[in-house]
Amino acid sequence: MKIAVFGTGTVGPTVAAALSARGHDVVIGTRDPEATLARTEPGAMGGPAFPEWHAAHRQIGVATFADAAARSEIVVNATNGGGSLAALAAAGDANLAGKVLIDIANPLDFSQGFPPSLNPVNTDSLGEQLQRAFPEARVVKTLNTMTASVMVDPAGVAGGDHSVFVSGNDAAAKETVKGLLEGLGHRDIIDLGDITTARGAEMILPLWLRVWGALGTGEFNFKVAR
Amino acid sequence: MKIAVFGTGTVGPTVAAALSARGHDVVIGTRDPEATLARTEPGAMGGPAFPEWHAAHRQIGVATFADAAARSEIVVNATNGGGSLAALAAAGDANLAGKVLIDIANPLDFSQGFPPSLNPVNTDSLGEQLQRAFPEARVVKTLNTMTASVMVDPAGVAGGDHSVFVSGNDAAAKETVKGLLEGLGHRDIIDLGDITTARGAEMILPLWLRVWGALGTGEFNFKVAR
Repeated sequence: MKIAVFGTGTVGPTVAAALSARGHDVVIGTRDPEATLARTEPGAMGGPAFPEWHAAHRQIGVATFADAAARSEIVVNATNGGGSLAALAAAGDANLAGKVLIDIANPLDFSQGFPPSLNPVNTDSLGEQLQRAFPEARVVKTLNTMTASVMVDPAGVAGGDHSVFVSGNDAAAKETVKGLLEGLGHRDIIDLGDITTARGAEMILPLWLRVWGALGTGEFNFKVAR
Repeated sequence: MKIAVFGTGTVGPTVAAALSARGHDVVIGTRDPEATLARTEPGAMGGPAFPEWHAAHRQIGVATFADAAARSEIVVNATNGGGSLAALAAAGDANLAGKVLIDIANPLDFSQGFPPSLNPVNTDSLGEQLQRAFPEARVVKTLNTMTASVMVDPAGVAGGDHSVFVSGNDAAAKETVKGLLEGLGHRDIIDLGDITTARGAEMILPLWLRVWGALGTGEFNFKVAR
């Protein structure tokens, strides 16, 4: 499928590379492609600078948010949660209308230091904000409950014996997303319900961060044991 | 050990019975023991009325919050989250000082219907509220992330292959709690850190409620797969 992945941090390129490796036609969306391709600072978590990563993934295009969305059937939001509304606004309503918008971001607020709080939280979620802001997009929240490496290689943790959640109002969009998740190797996909259930998926982040601290690694995932 | 369990809903009696069955000297704490023992309405979730439950558990005393705390080394808070501060205030500072206060409640706010929101949330937690209100108590948050039957019979779900979290400022109190949890059959006990980490444990509740809805049963638990 034609997929745009928004975001040039750790998550976006990781997901883009995995989807490309599985045969999808992937483009990275960014505010200013020229600036992104001229970056010299290393990636987050000590990864390579974006141009170095891109040199190893030439089959993945780099385009503006608008151009990337316009040519795609699916848009993956892997931008920082605080910047997601602006990034999608830059893509433009018309380029999102009817598209499956997979929101894997978390609305982490680091303004008071670590650990971050969430904003929005409790009675709202980033997933709902995006669905309200782009009512013609078909928003599905998923994958935000694990680190990027586990998103794309679930078998790397406990042989893949753990869970991933989907939330969204559009049943067909959720089926499309389930297909992509299965393609990445996810076996236990739990449909939580409509997009308001994204609150639950996002509100696991404070626990995720503390488990990360307790274990000293992000290489874990939650499993719904039953 | 001498343990007071505060709360006469589903959770309190379930935990009290399990601890009593493992040889602990357990008393239920309630605002008005006479009224509690005269109740005729059925318990939550269709369980027996309290007097009927108590007739089958005569070894478990019923006392005021203050009397129950005064004679115990450990106090378990299994009251409604919204009433926990008041219940513990009724117990009295002097009766809580130095005691291990195990907080298994969740600050669910049903004032806007279902699903409930949390209050406090995000930058505070019930566990922290209790520790601030009773600075001489040694608060440990635990067990709030699962339903009562799983708290006391973890092997009943996936053979017990799932996780329980502990949060608290006092290392010795956490060791005491770990011993109780192991006595109940919990095998994967994850120490999240100080009492501020109770935010994470409490904020999993919105996801717990949605998974409950998706599965149609509360007989599950989260496992940290790694």
